Amino acid sequence: MKFIHTADWHLGKLVHGIYMTEDQREVLNQFVQLVEEEKPDAVVIAGDLYDRSVPPTDAVELLDEVLFKINVELKTPVVAIAGNHDSAERLHFGSSWYRNSHFYLTGKIQNEFKPVQINGVNFYLVPYAEPGNVRHALNREGVNSHQEAMKAIIGKIEENLNPNEPNVFVGHAFVLGGNTTDSERTLSVGGSGCVTQDLFAPFSYTALGHLHSPDAIKHDKIFYSGSLLKYSFSEAKQRKSVSIVEMKENGTFDIRYRSLAPKQDMRELSGYLEELLDTSFYEKEKVDDYLKITLHDEGALLDPIEKLRQVYPNVLHLERKLVLKDMKDKKSFTSVREEKKSELELFEQFYTEMTTAEFTEDKKEVMTEVIEKVLQEEGDRR
Amino acid sequence: MKFIHTADWHLGKLVHGIYMTEDQREVLNQFVQLVEEEKPDAVVIAGDLYDRSVPPTDAVELLDEVLFKINVELKTPVVAIAGNHDSAERLHFGSSWYRNSHFYLTGKIQNEFKPVQINGVNFYLVPYAEPGNVRHALNREGVNSHQEAMKAIIGKIEENLNPNEPNVFVGHAFVLGGNTTDSERTLSVGGSGCVTQDLFAPFSYTALGHLHSPDAIKHDKIFYSGSLLKYSFSEAKQRKSVSIVEMKENGTFDIRYRSLAPKQDMRELSGYLEELLDTSFYEKEKVDDYLKITLHDEGALLDPIEKLRQVYPNVLHLERKLVLKDMKDKKSFTSVREEKKSELELFEQFYTEMTTAEFTEDKKEVMTEVIEKVLQEEGDRR
Repeated sequence: MKFIHTADWHLGKLVHGIYMTEDQREVLNQFVQLVEEEKPDAVVIAGDLYDRSVPPTDAVELLDEVLFKINVELKTPVVAIAGNHDSAERLHFGSSWYRNSHFYLTGKIQNEFKPVQINGVNFYLVPYAEPGNVRHALNREGVNSHQEAMKAIIGKIEENLNPNEPNVFVGHAFVLGGNTTDSERTLSVGGSGCVTQDLFAPFSYTALGHLHSPDAIKHDKIFYSGSLLKYSFSEAKQRKSVSIVEMKENGTFDIRYRSLAPKQDMRELSGYLEELLDTSFYEKEKVDDYLKITLHDEGALLDPIEKLRQVYPNVLHLERKLVLKDMKDKKSFTSVREEKKSELELFEQFYTEMTTAEFTEDKKEVMTEVIEKVLQEEGDRR
Repeated sequence: MKFIHTADWHLGKLVHGIYMTEDQREVLNQFVQLVEEEKPDAVVIAGDLYDRSVPPTDAVELLDEVLFKINVELKTPVVAIAGNHDSAERLHFGSSWYRNSHFYLTGKIQNEFKPVQINGVNFYLVPYAEPGNVRHALNREGVNSHQEAMKAIIGKIEENLNPNEPNVFVGHAFVLGGNTTDSERTLSVGGSGCVTQDLFAPFSYTALGHLHSPDAIKHDKIFYSGSLLKYSFSEAKQRKSVSIVEMKENGTFDIRYRSLAPKQDMRELSGYLEELLDTSFYEKEKVDDYLKITLHDEGALLDPIEKLRQVYPNVLHLERKLVLKDMKDKKSFTSVREEKKSELELFEQFYTEMTTAEFTEDKKEVMTEVIEKVLQEEGDRR
């Protein structure tokens, strides 16, 4: 029995102000083709189909279109759950009808975990749910963390699980041992969102969504498929693929990966402005990729982003990082907002970064005067 | 062949700050029971299933539940279209799957109007669409009004329509001859949203949604079913029902109405405060109905809404209207915002309504001084 494990499509995602819907359409077309070639017995989507609870309408249309091709036209059973980015209730709408076409979609956590059986394999669908919702749905006091919630759910599943059959857990969770990237960050703050690996011991294969790298966890039975695309620059070096799992009757399996190639990659580039704008440099580059550029230049630069965009139209983020011999690296732009600094400190930082000259006491005096005058006038106006 | 015609459910509707979802659930339960009794060959819902493009999640769950009962449990084919309050794209999601269960849902206008055939009757599904969307979908220049759009659509339908069969048009539009109420108002401003009755001549029965009264149009083949519930006080005196249509092979039909009874009616009440608060008056009243109360009292009243709510918990709107012998009626509250008045005029109106004493020249002088001082200070601060 063969299934494809994918997750974290995040349809309707906005990356640095750019809607990724067309990139997603491109990659999903490749995915549909891959399904056509592989002819799996099922496609498993482990949550975060959309990027937000109310996705833009073109993302809604894209999902409808892609699932229709896979499920109805290619007659492939589809197993899908809601992730933390999906709206459980909105995604759940219509799921009772979809089952007739072997499209098994679970948006909301329920008090029943009857497996979906496809060619001898049992799929247990566990959508993302807050501990409070699990406590309510399972009517179990004392469920206050994701760990307790998952334990309660799996305990409930085990009541009727036949360990002699291949059992696949489909979930959306932060399983410990994983590494996070920027685009997954929201959930994991403080570690309260984590669950431990040992909970999944009853399953032959655990098909997870949530972390965006297929290498996020090293385990012989627990896997993240990784996201469809790179969704932040912290994922720039991750491979993106879907997992092809061939499940045997005894619950062991073979796994291999097939990658999907977006038209535009997301990657980082660094160097001196002049160098990056040099034909001999960029003629070897895929200039329309989504780029984060780090400039090493010292001193003031006049509108570097404009100049860069004439060569690299999709620069999404620009940073400057001086490369000095005996000093620690200094960051600009991004760090400014992170700390609470006085106006004078902010200006001093700006001045030294832009000029590399010293911000002398004389200069400091002049600026102090200017700043005080401005603040005074602002106060008067209030 | 028997079908039930309903429309304008407006699930998730907020009336004067109150979510009507529980009232809707109550009435829809009655509707499901009515379907069970009538055993129709189809249920037709002519648009505005939801009240807005992104309805609250409990409205989404309610629609899912009700349609599942009717379509899957009672095995009744359902024919539904999007209205102007629905999101065409969001409602359309999944419609390809629903067809397998004889749930025919059209959210988006398309360039094809293949009828849904149910027991010898052809249903033509025409969701609400802006003229621009119709122009685009049908690729027809010169479609700039709703009238032109509807003409183009029906022209297209007629290309393949067999006039010897019973043909039912299912649409969501403001057909001339109808009367509007407050809750339909948005679309009809300026009359540009109107279409004429003659366009529907090719059809045996035209099942409309949009206007909320079943009496909104007097025509022997064009009908509004009316909304599920009263959704504004301008509908307080309307009957609310669904239409049971028995269609014969030659395209003639019988029609009858069945009403649905919400737990709480929406109605208007008027009188003097003391009278309305008198036990002998309200003991005969259904005090927990949704009420618009008009008080006839003169002079100042201390917190009348609080006093009224102790007897009538669901007062949604309070107005005052003096009943004077030789004067025209005067309105307060609501009328204030309608006209552009000076500060002095506004105060004068307020003063006379609250006290019924004269706003003398002396008083006027004092107020003029106060108002000028306030405006002056406000100007200085800007």
